[in-house]
Amino acid sequence: MTGRLFVIGLGPGDLALLTGEAQAALDQCTDLFGYLPYIERLPERPGARRHASDNREELDRARAALALAAEGASVGVVSGGDPGVFAMASAVFEAIETGPAAWRALEVTVIPGISAMLAAAARVGAPLGHDFAVVSLSDNLKPWPLVLARLGAAFEHLRAILPGETPVVFATAVTRPDERVEIVTLAEAEATRADMRTMVLIGTAETRRIPRGEGLRDWLYAPRSSGVGRASA
Amino acid sequence: MTGRLFVIGLGPGDLALLTGEAQAALDQCTDLFGYLPYIERLPERPGARRHASDNREELDRARAALALAAEGASVGVVSGGDPGVFAMASAVFEAIETGPAAWRALEVTVIPGISAMLAAAARVGAPLGHDFAVVSLSDNLKPWPLVLARLGAAFEHLRAILPGETPVVFATAVTRPDERVEIVTLAEAEATRADMRTMVLIGTAETRRIPRGEGLRDWLYAPRSSGVGRASA
Repeated sequence: MTGRLFVIGLGPGDLALLTGEAQAALDQCTDLFGYLPYIERLPERPGARRHASDNREELDRARAALALAAEGASVGVVSGGDPGVFAMASAVFEAIETGPAAWRALEVTVIPGISAMLAAAARVGAPLGHDFAVVSLSDNLKPWPLVLARLGAAFEHLRAILPGETPVVFATAVTRPDERVEIVTLAEAEATRADMRTMVLIGTAETRRIPRGEGLRDWLYAPRSSGVGRASA
Repeated sequence: MTGRLFVIGLGPGDLALLTGEAQAALDQCTDLFGYLPYIERLPERPGARRHASDNREELDRARAALALAAEGASVGVVSGGDPGVFAMASAVFEAIETGPAAWRALEVTVIPGISAMLAAAARVGAPLGHDFAVVSLSDNLKPWPLVLARLGAAFEHLRAILPGETPVVFATAVTRPDERVEIVTLAEAEATRADMRTMVLIGTAETRRIPRGEGLRDWLYAPRSSGVGRASA
């Protein structure tokens, strides 16, 4: 008897951003594994056991989920955002590669989710409308002060090559009750505005900013016709 | 009286990848604008007029949608994948910036969707598990032969700096009935395998490939601990 493993993207926070496919997978799992705050977003369901763990135990969590699936269970590993972007899916496949050979034959389905990057971009317009690069700010495998120092160094570097008024977005806890979205300029951007729940979107010299007046947040967008447009998230 | 404009991401194809938020927006629109194949994915609904147009008329479509919203309608502009990634949201904001001042006060909501990039990555494992860059292969504003020539040049350049066995994924029409996903090596990658519905994911020297044996597609993943990992999509 062979079980199944679903690696399920829950999206950035608000469950309205869950897909139908993710919900269908959640509904058929007998066991759910995940970082406690992600597991807690989901309503409890009779017949579905919940295995919550600390965020730093990704590989152990993946191995426990795979072992249970190999016994025949329908197992879900839940992840915030998209499970493939700096999240649980890599840990699951690392566990498969380094685990028992039988795990390679398991049916594993990665179910994409709305990444924080896409949700944050949507809040301010369309800053990812042209080519962009995505860099992890996770402190999962390195200390947060090092992440902040690198972000600060990136701002310094970019100030030397981009106009001071280039927009920079700090989008924290997007779609969650304590969401906070600020648009500043590159000249005034400070790394310490970010915490672990923050997406930092850095525009380019071609990013457009549309002023909207008192009480309305400006819109940002990258023109599709950008010649050399590039945004980092 | 003020209307609303929703820019709605439909995801890569299969409507199971639609979010609840996107469905709720679709349900309340009196008018839907979009490229004909996207509009046709949606079931018809009494009370919702459908305005389908050609894919090359993005700005005109955005202006027509905004004009109707400014008259008080609840208007949806639908987009494949995520509307912010090389899609309709940029056109909407360009139309706002260059249109009547009153459009700046309109309530515009961008509703993210599962991008083809995320769906394609999920099919093969977790190739975007570490830092990556995203480059548009759209022929919307340039001829397709030029796009292919650039992709071929990129392969040539990467062959000079990456191992020949670096994996390259051609993922076409993901989640649609004619989905086709192939993993090849950088040494054998040919740009002509791609068409306009293809995501090309190029691994790095650190991308791992897990052989699974006869009849099962290999898994790819980027280790989260990658020092300099980088994948392009």
